Amino acid sequence: MLFDLDGTLVDSVYQHVLSWREALDSEGLNLSLWRIHRRIGMSGGLFLQALTRELGQSLTEAQVERLRQSHAKNLLLKMDQIRPLPGAPELLARLTAMHVPWAIATSGGDVTARGTLALLDIPEGIPIVTRDQVAYAKPNPDLFMVAAERLGLAPRDCFVVGDSIWDLLAAQRAGALGIGLLSGGYGQDELERAGAYRVYGDPADLLAHLDELGIRAAG
Amino acid sequence: MLFDLDGTLVDSVYQHVLSWREALDSEGLNLSLWRIHRRIGMSGGLFLQALTRELGQSLTEAQVERLRQSHAKNLLLKMDQIRPLPGAPELLARLTAMHVPWAIATSGGDVTARGTLALLDIPEGIPIVTRDQVAYAKPNPDLFMVAAERLGLAPRDCFVVGDSIWDLLAAQRAGALGIGLLSGGYGQDELERAGAYRVYGDPADLLAHLDELGIRAAG
Repeated sequence: MLFDLDGTLVDSVYQHVLSWREALDSEGLNLSLWRIHRRIGMSGGLFLQALTRELGQSLTEAQVERLRQSHAKNLLLKMDQIRPLPGAPELLARLTAMHVPWAIATSGGDVTARGTLALLDIPEGIPIVTRDQVAYAKPNPDLFMVAAERLGLAPRDCFVVGDSIWDLLAAQRAGALGIGLLSGGYGQDELERAGAYRVYGDPADLLAHLDELGIRAAG
Repeated sequence: MLFDLDGTLVDSVYQHVLSWREALDSEGLNLSLWRIHRRIGMSGGLFLQALTRELGQSLTEAQVERLRQSHAKNLLLKMDQIRPLPGAPELLARLTAMHVPWAIATSGGDVTARGTLALLDIPEGIPIVTRDQVAYAKPNPDLFMVAAERLGLAPRDCFVVGDSIWDLLAAQRAGALGIGLLSGGYGQDELERAGAYRVYGDPADLLAHLDELGIRAAG
């Protein structure tokens, strides 16, 4: 199983939304929070391209860099509000106990991901792929393809678990089946239209339905 | 036209979500942000009932009162982050200029609504119905029925404009047609399933499509 991080294992999407809003504000750019929410989970670069399309104006490279840094700084200030999603630690522990291989693949950068990864008790040897390690982040498939490779598996033998349509679109491009979680605040229909094979509420709900996915202890 | 306020005319839903989360935290109650988001727009009382069902534990009356006060206090601290949604002032001004009667009906209380209403330039004489003025808030129809009555209209001759499924369910109960806006962060499908007659992005998008609703200057 290849997991997205924000909104999938940790309850951090709303803090990301507000951190981007504060960053945009400080550049004098006014964008509604729901429009930012709908772009969370893309790579920062694509995210900013999409937002500038909605804003109808382009950003300089210096602005893009300031926005990224401001977002990361704002998010770090909110880190103490961020918690694991219900069932996330239990789900990961169960997979480990069952010898089901798993990895984490996030569009977040090293700096911001480090804080949220620390909330999960991740055993040694679990592959963690961050934005900094691939050429293109979601909705490109690179993050999930590298994560599968580190597990020694073909992507078509993996489930991708994510909360955003960008995870599910990237899963399709990687050739993996996508499992959607509602815990990032997207609607079920949005996730299904992006190709979700199944949709669950949060990690606890997924854990309670592992049998539906045919996941059992490795022999 | 009968307007909801938070998420419909002002970009305040995400601040409400975080304010409830902070309030719940201070009572030692842990609830994911997306679950709070999906309940925003209900009356505070029903909201807390729904949350306790999800938490699987009941709250004392004293706890409910502390949660309400804490939410209001937290929201007031975030008031300077709240802006009108794009097109909201222009939409209201256009309706006024066209002599189309309109009113605002919000599940928010007087104290929190006052701050957000101040962001909109509301002419004298526009009816404003808040939680404190009716026995039951959304999804009960009372707020919209009182708003229609103050305009001297039957609810069936009104459009209700709202961002949450609770607005649209209340509109159905009042016998009015509901117009959904995506600006509160709900998905289009959720709003349509709750009975939306039409769905637009935000007030600017609604303003650009008033002709679709057959709204024209009153003779």
